[in-house]
Amino acid sequence: MNKEIQGRLGLLREAMKKEGIDFYMIPTSDFHNSEYVDDYFKAREYFSGFTGSNGTLAVGQDMAGLWTDGRYFIQAAQELEGTGIELFRMQEEGVPEIPDFLYEKMEEGQILGFDGRTVSCKEGRRLEKKLTEGKGIKINYGADLAAETWKGRPGLPCHKITVLPEEISGESAAEKLDKVRRKIKEAGAEYLLLSKLDDLMWLLNIRGNDVECNPVALSYGFLTQKEVYFFIQEPEVTEEFTQYAKENHIIVKDYNGIMDFLRGYDYKGKVMLDESNSNYALFKTVIGQTEYVPGDNPTELLKAIKNKTELAKIKEVYRKDSAALIKFIYWLKKNIGKMEITEISAAEYLNHLRQDVEGFLDLSFPTISAYKDSAAMMHYEATENNYKTLAPEGMLLVDSGGQYMGGTTDVTRTIVLGGIDEEVKMHFTLVAAGMLQLTDAKFLYGCTGRNLDILARQPLWSHGIDYKCGTGHGIGYMLNVHEGPQNIRWRFTSAMKEAVIEPGMVISNEPGVYKEGSHGIRTENILVAQNAEKNGDGQFMEFDTLTFVPIDKEAINTAYLQPADLERLNRYHAQVYEKTQEYLTDEEREWLKEATAPIEG
Amino acid sequence: MNKEIQGRLGLLREAMKKEGIDFYMIPTSDFHNSEYVDDYFKAREYFSGFTGSNGTLAVGQDMAGLWTDGRYFIQAAQELEGTGIELFRMQEEGVPEIPDFLYEKMEEGQILGFDGRTVSCKEGRRLEKKLTEGKGIKINYGADLAAETWKGRPGLPCHKITVLPEEISGESAAEKLDKVRRKIKEAGAEYLLLSKLDDLMWLLNIRGNDVECNPVALSYGFLTQKEVYFFIQEPEVTEEFTQYAKENHIIVKDYNGIMDFLRGYDYKGKVMLDESNSNYALFKTVIGQTEYVPGDNPTELLKAIKNKTELAKIKEVYRKDSAALIKFIYWLKKNIGKMEITEISAAEYLNHLRQDVEGFLDLSFPTISAYKDSAAMMHYEATENNYKTLAPEGMLLVDSGGQYMGGTTDVTRTIVLGGIDEEVKMHFTLVAAGMLQLTDAKFLYGCTGRNLDILARQPLWSHGIDYKCGTGHGIGYMLNVHEGPQNIRWRFTSAMKEAVIEPGMVISNEPGVYKEGSHGIRTENILVAQNAEKNGDGQFMEFDTLTFVPIDKEAINTAYLQPADLERLNRYHAQVYEKTQEYLTDEEREWLKEATAPIEG
Repeated sequence: MNKEIQGRLGLLREAMKKEGIDFYMIPTSDFHNSEYVDDYFKAREYFSGFTGSNGTLAVGQDMAGLWTDGRYFIQAAQELEGTGIELFRMQEEGVPEIPDFLYEKMEEGQILGFDGRTVSCKEGRRLEKKLTEGKGIKINYGADLAAETWKGRPGLPCHKITVLPEEISGESAAEKLDKVRRKIKEAGAEYLLLSKLDDLMWLLNIRGNDVECNPVALSYGFLTQKEVYFFIQEPEVTEEFTQYAKENHIIVKDYNGIMDFLRGYDYKGKVMLDESNSNYALFKTVIGQTEYVPGDNPTELLKAIKNKTELAKIKEVYRKDSAALIKFIYWLKKNIGKMEITEISAAEYLNHLRQDVEGFLDLSFPTISAYKDSAAMMHYEATENNYKTLAPEGMLLVDSGGQYMGGTTDVTRTIVLGGIDEEVKMHFTLVAAGMLQLTDAKFLYGCTGRNLDILARQPLWSHGIDYKCGTGHGIGYMLNVHEGPQNIRWRFTSAMKEAVIEPGMVISNEPGVYKEGSHGIRTENILVAQNAEKNGDGQFMEFDTLTFVPIDKEAINTAYLQPADLERLNRYHAQVYEKTQEYLTDEEREWLKEATAPIEG
Repeated sequence: MNKEIQGRLGLLREAMKKEGIDFYMIPTSDFHNSEYVDDYFKAREYFSGFTGSNGTLAVGQDMAGLWTDGRYFIQAAQELEGTGIELFRMQEEGVPEIPDFLYEKMEEGQILGFDGRTVSCKEGRRLEKKLTEGKGIKINYGADLAAETWKGRPGLPCHKITVLPEEISGESAAEKLDKVRRKIKEAGAEYLLLSKLDDLMWLLNIRGNDVECNPVALSYGFLTQKEVYFFIQEPEVTEEFTQYAKENHIIVKDYNGIMDFLRGYDYKGKVMLDESNSNYALFKTVIGQTEYVPGDNPTELLKAIKNKTELAKIKEVYRKDSAALIKFIYWLKKNIGKMEITEISAAEYLNHLRQDVEGFLDLSFPTISAYKDSAAMMHYEATENNYKTLAPEGMLLVDSGGQYMGGTTDVTRTIVLGGIDEEVKMHFTLVAAGMLQLTDAKFLYGCTGRNLDILARQPLWSHGIDYKCGTGHGIGYMLNVHEGPQNIRWRFTSAMKEAVIEPGMVISNEPGVYKEGSHGIRTENILVAQNAEKNGDGQFMEFDTLTFVPIDKEAINTAYLQPADLERLNRYHAQVYEKTQEYLTDEEREWLKEATAPIEG
């Protein structure tokens, strides 16, 4: 393998010489900064041998370096052995970031090359500022050297798109386009260049299948006040869509023609462009042609506020999805210690249960199944080379979800398999108390997740415990399991958005405790925000719960609960039974009855 | 009176003609935007007859208008009767704001005049943008027409300043100047123009007596990297200060010479200037001479973080101040119904009790004494013409505080005088629960008041009730009872600052319920932030309570309290007794014992 990598790097270096490129950079991204990337986009893996999900390769004539994060230090060191590629451990002391490294390594007048479609606008501008403005290094952002040097490169993912009928979408594309066009005008622009895939799918009421777990199609949209130029691979277009496109003034263009189109278009006004959701090549192409108006995609907020049809479907889907997880927990508790179950086989069993649910399309993300101390690692992924076998002791954390015709689900439960100690019970109970306190929040319209976050953290903070992540994220409708702009967190970096919680927003509520080397606990329900009473003091809001899966009573110590907390837990459990029992077998129902029976204080 | 006002306006209009001014504007402010203005600055009252604390007069040759807010609509209408001055009810529908009004009323090339020292930088720039940039109207900001037309205008307030010894201030002016100068340099400036009075007093370790309830002297400071040019009225300077000034490289200049000084100074660098705390005339003078660096006064944050000496003194002072309020409550409860007590005489009695406290200097703000439905008005002020007589029924809200050698206090209690109904008890109990929940917060360093606010509001919000103000404000040390940058509120306008809560910050915690026409409740304790444990999850923080006054148990309904709430209340009450009993008479102590005895759940 290592000789193979060296050979690949040799071909890449020849191509670099031909193109006059002194350093070539390969990040890990598709052209839309999707959460998962298809094989076509795995050039970094091809040229380095490193298989982790995050990493950037930089290649010069006499050195090559790979940058990755703490999750992958050990794995990357192993996989890079003998390749001659140096490992840069990101965030470690003394390890330079890529722009700083290149600034030191490169000379004035030299050329940095990369495929600008795989670099975010922000990162590209950062390189430009540091290298071009700071040292006179030139940037060639149009260089996809993998195109010529990667032998046997897989094709671009390419699957047919489907059109969502209005009884599923709840709102026609025409109505959505109307709203978005008004927002474009309000922002002082004439056009919108849309490259965020889930936004585009939402807007046009279509779905695709080009990104793992995300039902989206590789595409771009260019909205004028009358038409939509829609760039997609020709084989993805169906007859149904061709007809639909005509009705909606959607002009179908080739996916790979977007840059030429942008260069050749006769602009009559400014283009609205979301810098945090466009790649660098798109950005550079647009600003080379016309003025642009920076701003969030107007689709983002509109998409986040689910309409009545969507909400009705989502509620239905969550009940069925919850029942699948209940079946799983019942099976796990019944069989643990009686048959061999591993982190992987447990996840597979759950995935099968979901596949049996009516309307199932796909998982919404790869199921996380983490036993004992593995659960303390937030990004743990059991693999064939590295997994645990479950035993009747400790806890299993399972974070999972599905894509259904009618909704996208996400749920985490931490399940007691056998003996757990008092500290674990305390942590589990505090997590449950925080999760339920946030669920029960009543708050004035205008609050953001920043105002509410402490309700989930308070029981833990009171005991000097924190979890190092946000409390909640937005969730799509038959779309990405992570979507904005809403979220629940107590502090924000400059890259994060803070959004007022609007009625109809779907958001996760997932406090946890992560103790390295010991245990990890997360309890995650999904909520939908809705209006509560409006009175002289304002419009109050509240959450409705979508997820109905028992919280393991075996790990609850009521000494850490106030009567109000206990009442919330018992009330929730009563709902769990009521909302899911119809989907269960007699045996499962029996078990659930017990698992949701009220606890005495 | 109305003829008198007309006569005064006549003289003003003549002066306007002489100066070529078409419209003249008189706001209500001193040169430092202090919370209270001395008689010298009450030109608006002199020329309009309107005596409220907030209002702006705009005078043209053929009309005059007065803008004031909702608190004063009735009073202003009465006081303006027969003056010919039109009342503009601010915030009411269809009522223009002043810049918009002047924009409509004035012609291109006309001149708007005002004394730019009484207009904030922000307001001045707003006028400039709307009128000068928008319509070519000129602004003469150097016109103090009252100087020539106000017969018998009182003199500028002028009282001797005192120097605080280091055993009171805890840190020498030299050390403070050192820190501030470093901040100036870090901001890329050479100088700091400081016109916020409490910041200046803090920096130089001096106190004055020129503003009601605020122990500050009218002054300006211009800091270079070596000297402080200190502008103050000559009679305020004592021999002690003259000596002190020499030691600290403080060069004393005449208060009224600031503008000439700024115009004549030989600048070698940029001037740092806090736009939200400088008047428009100062701002215009500086930007006419040199470049400036906008930014918060570096004194603000340093001043807000109290040092050990200050904190030790503050704790001591709060115990004594709390005892004064306890004496008052005891007296009130004992005598209500037995002697005539009014809102005013009650306040006077409390003021006398404070005057008897060791180290008392002044009130920190005029005592608010509001009975029954008067307490529902947040800005209620009992006056000789408008006050209530107390009876053994309902509640009295008393918000009060003192300036002491060693601290500034602020405390509110709502006191039961007799029968109250169940709704009032519910409100009172929810307010107490929220106040105590916030007091007990443990939180990670990095939190601002925005993260914490919901802890105080949650019990009320759960019942669909809100209070239309922030939950807490910073408090000075022998300085202003309102100071920044810290505060506790759930949302911010663009003019408000959000600051991380630092150990040593003193902050109020004052949730309430205000039901128009019925009752008003506020329970206010003062807290100091301090470090709690630091562990792998971060630096935790907590609050220590400074205020020790019982929360009226007669208005507590335990049905609205969780066991944790009740435990907090009982724990607080035990502390109240312990911290204050030494200052009480046997009789008072006896009563306090009962008032702070634990409640059973």
